[in-house]
Amino acid sequence: MIEANAQWRLAARPVGLPKPSDWEYVEEPAPDPEDGQFRVRIEYISLDPAMRGWMNEARSYVPPVGIGEVMRAGAIGQVIDSRHPDYDVGQCVTGMFGVQRYAISDGRAVRRVDTSLAPAPVHLGALGMTGLTAYFGLLELGRPQPGQTVAVSGAAGAVGSVVGQIARIKGCRTVGIAGGPEKCAWIVDGLGFDAAIDYKGGELRSELRRHTPDGIDVYFDNVGGETLDEVLRRIAFGARVVICGAISQYNEQQPRGPVNYMQLLVQRASMAGFLVFDYAERYPEAIAQLAEWLAAGELHSREDVVRGGLEQFPEVFLGLFRGENTGKLILQLAD
Amino acid sequence: MIEANAQWRLAARPVGLPKPSDWEYVEEPAPDPEDGQFRVRIEYISLDPAMRGWMNEARSYVPPVGIGEVMRAGAIGQVIDSRHPDYDVGQCVTGMFGVQRYAISDGRAVRRVDTSLAPAPVHLGALGMTGLTAYFGLLELGRPQPGQTVAVSGAAGAVGSVVGQIARIKGCRTVGIAGGPEKCAWIVDGLGFDAAIDYKGGELRSELRRHTPDGIDVYFDNVGGETLDEVLRRIAFGARVVICGAISQYNEQQPRGPVNYMQLLVQRASMAGFLVFDYAERYPEAIAQLAEWLAAGELHSREDVVRGGLEQFPEVFLGLFRGENTGKLILQLAD
Repeated sequence: MIEANAQWRLAARPVGLPKPSDWEYVEEPAPDPEDGQFRVRIEYISLDPAMRGWMNEARSYVPPVGIGEVMRAGAIGQVIDSRHPDYDVGQCVTGMFGVQRYAISDGRAVRRVDTSLAPAPVHLGALGMTGLTAYFGLLELGRPQPGQTVAVSGAAGAVGSVVGQIARIKGCRTVGIAGGPEKCAWIVDGLGFDAAIDYKGGELRSELRRHTPDGIDVYFDNVGGETLDEVLRRIAFGARVVICGAISQYNEQQPRGPVNYMQLLVQRASMAGFLVFDYAERYPEAIAQLAEWLAAGELHSREDVVRGGLEQFPEVFLGLFRGENTGKLILQLAD
Repeated sequence: MIEANAQWRLAARPVGLPKPSDWEYVEEPAPDPEDGQFRVRIEYISLDPAMRGWMNEARSYVPPVGIGEVMRAGAIGQVIDSRHPDYDVGQCVTGMFGVQRYAISDGRAVRRVDTSLAPAPVHLGALGMTGLTAYFGLLELGRPQPGQTVAVSGAAGAVGSVVGQIARIKGCRTVGIAGGPEKCAWIVDGLGFDAAIDYKGGELRSELRRHTPDGIDVYFDNVGGETLDEVLRRIAFGARVVICGAISQYNEQQPRGPVNYMQLLVQRASMAGFLVFDYAERYPEAIAQLAEWLAAGELHSREDVVRGGLEQFPEVFLGLFRGENTGKLILQLAD
């Protein structure tokens, strides 16, 4: 016997920045799990810029969320009811459970969470898709070599903060681009970046020049827009530009492309995109490595956990696009 | 004793499309070669879109042509006067001799031309930098596999026409994008492309869809702009986008970047730039292969040779940007 489920369902395709009315809050009786299913009580919901893309009706790497469907989101929760042979009541699990209080799952794309390694929210941060995205994107596509310069945008965000730390661990000069003096101070003093550039300071071009005297060998991009263009002016010979996201453009009705992309030719450089899902077979290896760095104190995971009701989802989610979060933004559901 | 030299010197940095007055035509007595130098009487001047970029004062892969300097250009001519131990009078040579009647050279970056393989203009076309650019760009960066779909823009131009033919030789489905029905007919009927798309026909998007049912595995881009954006919508999983040029943007004061570059992420694809000069050590191997294909009739080199005075250079050069040439545009100097 559980209380009624509550969900945020997609109500409309947003134009520009989503409005709260682009979702609909629905409470209704929760169905019971069938044979081969289990029920999760969701405790933490992962709020990610990519979710904005899933709201569009465009060709992408996953189908769009349909109008009337529960808003897609990663989450962590506890199995509270199971008719699945591999999942027992009390287990902590993570998967794409959606923006709701209770999820029914058949176990596909679900992983068990080992809370003895770290508290649950960390499994949405450095030990979750966030950390895995940073790990595979930087190491597999960026291929940073010791002594090279790695720049990352969204550097105080969920993925960016892990990218910079892995680059530091790998012996690179690490330059983070973030918004505002507090974030910049944190990535240098708290995370050990070599330099931080406040893109809101109006000196992006000259600051990039100052902090990357030998150019940029690897650029891990989370933001797109002007920042990507300015970094392209600084790429070094043979640079690798890793496209992870473009948060500055997700709500633009006239998005811009990288005007300076011909620097790829000038510098014999490449720009490549990736999706973490392609590395699913190697998640265990990566999580083990990330956990080892965490335990050794070389890697810090910061979660920006907003404790509140599910009702707050639209408001908290939109904070992502205002750059309000530092580290991984998570909505914790009050019980 | 030679007649006076004549040169086109850069007079101003063009804004937008160059005007004839951005160069200055100068006639003056020609200096004699010194020890270790030789003099070339230029017969054919290569007219290339890249020359537009060399006129700008921007960070690029070669220094800009200075104001007052001879306009940079590749050319072929005959040694008519030599004080260089390795070059004899009568030899046919190619190098960056500039837009002038006579050039003095010390032999750096000069290659001998074997006119027994093919007439001199072909050595600016399929057996010259043009063919080498197509060869290394397509094979090294594009890495086309038999049965894959290769698309190329500027497909009736110097480089594009060779790219498509090499793709065909390698067993690929080859789709060319060109301007106007005549060029489209030529690449299909004359060069053996599988399909041609007339970008001026106003149906670029639907034609791309029609002719690339399985998407595009390799895109060799010479034009940038809208065409690049439309092709990005069609790239296949793991596609390689080879950036060779962006002729549609060279004269734009507000150039555009590829808005759809996030398709690189959706399709786990990459976009990379290159310069043929990086493969200089392998030129002999490539030229031997290209000559073999030429001799076997598998590869056709078409040169659009404009026979006229050096005086005509600005006018002929600007035809490149109006898409007037089919194949390799060459200015032949009347003697």
